[in-house]
Amino acid sequence: MAAPGPVHEALAALPLVDHHCHGAVTADLTPAGFASFLTEGEAWPGVSPFDTPVGVAVRRHCAPLLDLPRHAPPDAYTARRTELGRREVERRFLTAAGAEAFFVDTGCTTHPLTSPAELAAACGATAREVVRLEQVAEAVAARGVEPDAYAAAFAAAAEEAVRRPGVVAVKSVAAYRTGFALDPARPAAREVTRAARHWLAGGGRLTDPVLVRHLLWTAVDLGLPLQLHTGFGDADLRLHHADPALLTDWLRLTSGTVPVLLLHCWPYHRQAAYLAAVFEQVYLDVGLALHHTGPARCRAVLEEALEITPFRKLLYSSDAYGLAEFHHLGALCFRQGLADLLQARVDADELSLPDALRIAAWTGRDNARRLYGLYGPPPAEPARDPSGRPTRKV
Amino acid sequence: MAAPGPVHEALAALPLVDHHCHGAVTADLTPAGFASFLTEGEAWPGVSPFDTPVGVAVRRHCAPLLDLPRHAPPDAYTARRTELGRREVERRFLTAAGAEAFFVDTGCTTHPLTSPAELAAACGATAREVVRLEQVAEAVAARGVEPDAYAAAFAAAAEEAVRRPGVVAVKSVAAYRTGFALDPARPAAREVTRAARHWLAGGGRLTDPVLVRHLLWTAVDLGLPLQLHTGFGDADLRLHHADPALLTDWLRLTSGTVPVLLLHCWPYHRQAAYLAAVFEQVYLDVGLALHHTGPARCRAVLEEALEITPFRKLLYSSDAYGLAEFHHLGALCFRQGLADLLQARVDADELSLPDALRIAAWTGRDNARRLYGLYGPPPAEPARDPSGRPTRKV
Amino acid sequence: MAAPGPVHEALAALPLVDHHCHGAVTADLTPAGFASFLTEGEAWPGVSPFDTPVGVAVRRHCAPLLDLPRHAPPDAYTARRTELGRREVERRFLTAAGAEAFFVDTGCTTHPLTSPAELAAACGATAREVVRLEQVAEAVAARGVEPDAYAAAFAAAAEEAVRRPGVVAVKSVAAYRTGFALDPARPAAREVTRAARHWLAGGGRLTDPVLVRHLLWTAVDLGLPLQLHTGFGDADLRLHHADPALLTDWLRLTSGTVPVLLLHCWPYHRQAAYLAAVFEQVYLDVGLALHHTGPARCRAVLEEALEITPFRKLLYSSDAYGLAEFHHLGALCFRQGLADLLQARVDADELSLPDALRIAAWTGRDNARRLYGLYGPPPAEPARDPSGRPTRKV
Repeated sequence: MAAPGPVHEALAALPLVDHHCHGAVTADLTPAGFASFLTEGEAWPGVSPFDTPVGVAVRRHCAPLLDLPRHAPPDAYTARRTELGRREVERRFLTAAGAEAFFVDTGCTTHPLTSPAELAAACGATAREVVRLEQVAEAVAARGVEPDAYAAAFAAAAEEAVRRPGVVAVKSVAAYRTGFALDPARPAAREVTRAARHWLAGGGRLTDPVLVRHLLWTAVDLGLPLQLHTGFGDADLRLHHADPALLTDWLRLTSGTVPVLLLHCWPYHRQAAYLAAVFEQVYLDVGLALHHTGPARCRAVLEEALEITPFRKLLYSSDAYGLAEFHHLGALCFRQGLADLLQARVDADELSLPDALRIAAWTGRDNARRLYGLYGPPPAEPARDPSGRPTRKV
Repeated sequence: MAAPGPVHEALAALPLVDHHCHGAVTADLTPAGFASFLTEGEAWPGVSPFDTPVGVAVRRHCAPLLDLPRHAPPDAYTARRTELGRREVERRFLTAAGAEAFFVDTGCTTHPLTSPAELAAACGATAREVVRLEQVAEAVAARGVEPDAYAAAFAAAAEEAVRRPGVVAVKSVAAYRTGFALDPARPAAREVTRAARHWLAGGGRLTDPVLVRHLLWTAVDLGLPLQLHTGFGDADLRLHHADPALLTDWLRLTSGTVPVLLLHCWPYHRQAAYLAAVFEQVYLDVGLALHHTGPARCRAVLEEALEITPFRKLLYSSDAYGLAEFHHLGALCFRQGLADLLQARVDADELSLPDALRIAAWTGRDNARRLYGLYGPPPAEPARDPSGRPTRKV
Repeated sequence: MAAPGPVHEALAALPLVDHHCHGAVTADLTPAGFASFLTEGEAWPGVSPFDTPVGVAVRRHCAPLLDLPRHAPPDAYTARRTELGRREVERRFLTAAGAEAFFVDTGCTTHPLTSPAELAAACGATAREVVRLEQVAEAVAARGVEPDAYAAAFAAAAEEAVRRPGVVAVKSVAAYRTGFALDPARPAAREVTRAARHWLAGGGRLTDPVLVRHLLWTAVDLGLPLQLHTGFGDADLRLHHADPALLTDWLRLTSGTVPVLLLHCWPYHRQAAYLAAVFEQVYLDVGLALHHTGPARCRAVLEEALEITPFRKLLYSSDAYGLAEFHHLGALCFRQGLADLLQARVDADELSLPDALRIAAWTGRDNARRLYGLYGPPPAEPARDPSGRPTRKV
């Protein structure tokens, strides 16, 4: 690890934009419940989720914020967490994250999570919302719709969802549903109707390849930045189908439309970097990998991600989910990993200090500010008149 | 490379469990014969197999054990090896490996190799056997069986093979035969019969996709840990079909059954790590890559493999084949690479020393001890009464 | 970065063979025109191509050769470049590259580029030519040919092209046209005719899978070393279809014929290394990645590429295109990255100094000398009598 220098200082002081995260669980967690959030898998008998890189990182870097010694044992950690109470814990970690803004994916409903507003309130940051389109589509299906009206109903519901104040982006988890080895073309209306007929009859999650393609193209029509889960995630994934290189043909077809933000990417971050280097609309982050690999490997992952990525194309996200520890750890890992990387280049005279400072500010904050139009309309906007809603609404 | 510290000392003293290796050749090797074992390819005219990372590592780290200077020239090395004789060479390297146990895949019959018992006897370690299922299936075919009796005959033969004392695991080289882009479902009986009819008529190696799937499901029925070759191997492989991520659907279907040990993995060790992080039954090692990349790169490969792997999920293997040098080099590379990795984290205060020592002991020995039930029944068990054999035996 | 030592000195003094590059643009470049050559994508509004790893490397390592301070701003850089004039700039960078020979792919005609002879004349190096087979095939089609005469006409044109003095190799960009997920078998004559009928009717680039396969097999018949673009390139690529592992079956079928040189390879350089380790005819380089990742990452990329690559199998290329800066930067990155890698191993006593010096000379020069027969016939050979042309010519 590089000797700390001015880049470390600059990044420590930089308010980050965490352009993709989730809320923290609102339930009070038992020790086992806490441990289960440490892993993207499940907690397994006889194997503590603390015995992982992220578990080690929590004990090292989060314990001190709970007034515990570094490397505190798991029991002490969870006991102290309970003692302090959920809200105080959240306040400490979210504040420590030092973010000026959190963009929150509100579409994952497995556990009750803090809302964007609650997240922001806990630490004085700004919050914005990211609309998960699969959730919108599934809500349309759940409300009931005729197959031949599905496309219009989904488009209207998506448009309504993104018109709500505070929404800055949409997101798709197509990587989980079908993966990216899809026909890249916009599906014809009758294909969508046929697929919708089948799906609406059976119900359940949206996993039909035609409808997932249709969802991605609907995202393009919405005109907002589109976040795509790629790479690393939970057991529900086929990792090799989440390689963003599989999106190449679709990116070629949608060139000139919306910005596409490849989230996470690991272990395909070099493939993501290639796409960001050759397609104007493509950006990437290495969220999730940051806290899961821990500070010991963040520099290495960032080094690979930045091998060919233009410096205006990398963004910061934590992809924190459930535990406010992760909002903090993601930020800490990003700051430390990027500062080590940049400072080492400055020290070797491969990069000038002013350039290093610009790159730090761009990737930690300014690329997101620019891309999301300094966050779009604020959520405090008064509720709109229902009559102003899109007429296509079913 | 990190300054040596207490983690290095601990790993130097730790008796390893080498949970996947092969025997050493029993023939006396000519210089050219020796060189041909240095490569996973073949020896080519004009290109010395010594001019490789593993060749450099042998000259650096094996020469001193033959009383030669470090970096001894190839000629001197092979001359001294001949002078000492095969048994003495084996004794020195196997002893230097410092393993408490070797688990030996006995299914590769290209060259006559030392048996597990001979391997153990040479250095006072324990030896156990790993049964290669393709060999069992091919022996069933060679003995002659009706297509509709193949499934039962193979199951009985496999059961008999694994009931022999000292057997701790089964192994499949499906990666070589079809690769992992297989239908994950258990094939129906009539599919197996149809495929067996075709195979038994033609003979040769088991490469039929239905029968390879059937073999994997038969492995599940056996109830023993299942070792799977993945990633790097010889020229007989399609590397991209040996990406363990391709196993995802099959792992989902077999969840809750037998432990699955992903062997080697390189260059897909990050994909393997993902599977180990999200599937309870999945474990991995980076055997083969250790001695082939040599000490100069073992830390780097281990760093990548451990980015998200839970610390109870990594095991040690050498995958040594043919040369006892590799049993030694694998152990040396693992010890040095892992010690460098862990000590650097301790030195940076990213990991506590007690945690580092636990991780070293787990990955080098205790994960294997636990997973293989402290090695299962010993091979010294008296021969069983033939009447105790499974009744399904053909 | 390792402390400079004797390996650095040896590599600094070694005349390199740049076995795959292109010419420099012959037009005088505007600042925007210059910037557009910095990227494999296009120049995008609001995002300077200087804000990339390669842009940083140009300002750091090329500015001083134009008498500017290190890290000179882009405006100053392009202004000074204009002031000096194209020829002087070329002379400085090509001389600084320190190559004894450039092998130039003359088949990319997007921009007018310096010829091999001009490139050589600018710095006193030797130049040889690499014939791009897709260009030959497309010229045959453009001249007009009957479908059933296409195969013979293409073979004759290719043979004629490679018989020109100074030609040392052929190249295919099959990676761009179809990718490598092709049927590996040599297509039957009637298949070729059928595919040619379709292509010749429609015109345009050669992208028919049968004809691309046919082109690769025609390359085998020519008997010259075959360079294949793999991995990283411009937006016209599907990166995952350029994974060289996809070539495995074809390499097996063509074993014992021509040397195959996998160019670039990143991010699949480990896959390429596997192929080079197990197939006698396979070689690789990490050109293009060298200057695009810049000196800060060249050692890392080389470390990965060399994990298992036999030391007689790695070659040097810059893949410089358009800017003479890249001929220089590629050489600088290779020298620095490889010297850091080797010197660190010498310093750690993992490699002897004489071995390190041999590996440096092999990979930088001697492997290419050997493989290309010390460059084949010189281009200065007098023009051949037309009657000596192959009789198959249409």
